[in-house]
Amino acid sequence: MKLGITTGDSSGVGPEILLKAIRDGELRRPFCVFGDRAVLDRANRDLGFGVNLDALEIIDHKLMAAADVTPGKLNAASGHAAREYVVSATKAALRGEIAAIVTLPMNKEATRKSDPNFTGHTELIGEICGAPDVTIMLASSQLVVTHVSTHVSLREAIERAKKDRVARIIDLTHQAAARLFERPRIAVAGLNPHAGEHGLFGREEIDEIEPAVREAQARGIPVEGPVPPDTVFYLAVARKLYDAVVCMYHDQGHIPSKLLDFEGGVNVTLGLPIIRTSVDHGTAFDIAWKGTASTRSLVAAFEFAARLSGQQ
Amino acid sequence: MKLGITTGDSSGVGPEILLKAIRDGELRRPFCVFGDRAVLDRANRDLGFGVNLDALEIIDHKLMAAADVTPGKLNAASGHAAREYVVSATKAALRGEIAAIVTLPMNKEATRKSDPNFTGHTELIGEICGAPDVTIMLASSQLVVTHVSTHVSLREAIERAKKDRVARIIDLTHQAAARLFERPRIAVAGLNPHAGEHGLFGREEIDEIEPAVREAQARGIPVEGPVPPDTVFYLAVARKLYDAVVCMYHDQGHIPSKLLDFEGGVNVTLGLPIIRTSVDHGTAFDIAWKGTASTRSLVAAFEFAARLSGQQ
Repeated sequence: MKLGITTGDSSGVGPEILLKAIRDGELRRPFCVFGDRAVLDRANRDLGFGVNLDALEIIDHKLMAAADVTPGKLNAASGHAAREYVVSATKAALRGEIAAIVTLPMNKEATRKSDPNFTGHTELIGEICGAPDVTIMLASSQLVVTHVSTHVSLREAIERAKKDRVARIIDLTHQAAARLFERPRIAVAGLNPHAGEHGLFGREEIDEIEPAVREAQARGIPVEGPVPPDTVFYLAVARKLYDAVVCMYHDQGHIPSKLLDFEGGVNVTLGLPIIRTSVDHGTAFDIAWKGTASTRSLVAAFEFAARLSGQQ
Repeated sequence: MKLGITTGDSSGVGPEILLKAIRDGELRRPFCVFGDRAVLDRANRDLGFGVNLDALEIIDHKLMAAADVTPGKLNAASGHAAREYVVSATKAALRGEIAAIVTLPMNKEATRKSDPNFTGHTELIGEICGAPDVTIMLASSQLVVTHVSTHVSLREAIERAKKDRVARIIDLTHQAAARLFERPRIAVAGLNPHAGEHGLFGREEIDEIEPAVREAQARGIPVEGPVPPDTVFYLAVARKLYDAVVCMYHDQGHIPSKLLDFEGGVNVTLGLPIIRTSVDHGTAFDIAWKGTASTRSLVAAFEFAARLSGQQ
């Protein structure tokens, strides 16, 4: 089944990244595009990509005319349109018309101009799916990480590292890893230095993380931990002992992932009834419509969506 | 001036690492050894290194006989002796007889058998020097990091990320970096995801870190920040924008360092009146006296000690 790509905010790098990847033959499976044909037409012309748009399946929302686009500038119209592309694509995925959705970046501020309650791209999709409790897997060529919490203060992240939450993230990680690897081996990182060194530097490992790991093991999940945070990524990447690492907070997973592969990361939303991957970058207004934005994250997101939906 | 190497706990990997590095010609500057000749003799013989010990300047403490060594086993005598080597070497450095000390690992538990108040190798040296407020710089081939706190819980680490402490660590980092790099450029990492995103995910960047950075800049220190933690290491390593990164907690610095170079890391103690570097591994009783331990960290610690003491 085909994948669905949303073009994101037309003022940002979404349209050009999509067209560049198509021109360069980087999207090697059937897909359709949720966006505005007029925007793609203009980007194709302005940046001289020479892509044959007639050969492309575009779900044309007709929300933006070519002249409505303001490259690199916050634009309420493109913020609104980006939201609509995502709503359509999510519904199409829920109806089973597409195998997965791959999203190009939205701009939170632009979308808030028409939808003041908009809190984020992922939250919007979760809401449409009736699945508010989602989490992000960050996948790159060398490392796959998930997070017990993401965009909260470090102080709040510690509060959220509770047994039930850790257990749920282990489950979600295992479900996704089982689609990516034959016999997935999962590690759970500790929260404190040296994973607390037997309670000497914090008790979260003893009170919360270890019980969650034991429970998951009892359910038959191949998981180990808590592993000292400064060792687990070395064991996963260099020693290839683990396929995925469950992290206790945003930077624990993001620091090693972005160090290894700054541009090629992919966000996978876990906890949804559909498969959704996303590029791991924003609208990048500063370089938008210059044709210089990298297609690496889109191509990786496209491939991960295919793998997760069983199209190896 | 020569460097001084302490052999560490004789039950661990210290003696063999030293002899192996000497045999392989990896220590290419004048140095003397603080240890027990009888122990080195036995290791040299047992492991067949064939090093000419007569050519070595050994400050022989005569605390251990060859038969006293229990390879790979916790031993109160070798724990006590290891402490004495460090005391001697530190005093020699304070008297200016050696340019720096390079330490091989002690075993905390073994030393505690004779000195119940012993809290750590670094703390002992700080105490002898009358400099209790020390911190660790972790240096490897690609990345140099310092820490506002190290062996405390993540919860406690957040409490310690205060303006004065951050400012002091910036100063210490700059002092050391100025000995290692011509025009050192220092970055200060944020504490929270995205460095707090303007207060949205925590206020430590606004209330503590940024004021410390501004103050340091006003004192003429070339420092930037707070930089988002998941970006700063990429900027330092791949883009080469920074020579050293001041980190807010242990794992923030240790995760990227150990991922890039698990075995070649060096600990540099900052805040002492002497120069002290240390291997970044423990006594490794499980592989001690088998001749398999890597010399990489010792060789790197030796070279860093030379660079820090101006022997480029």
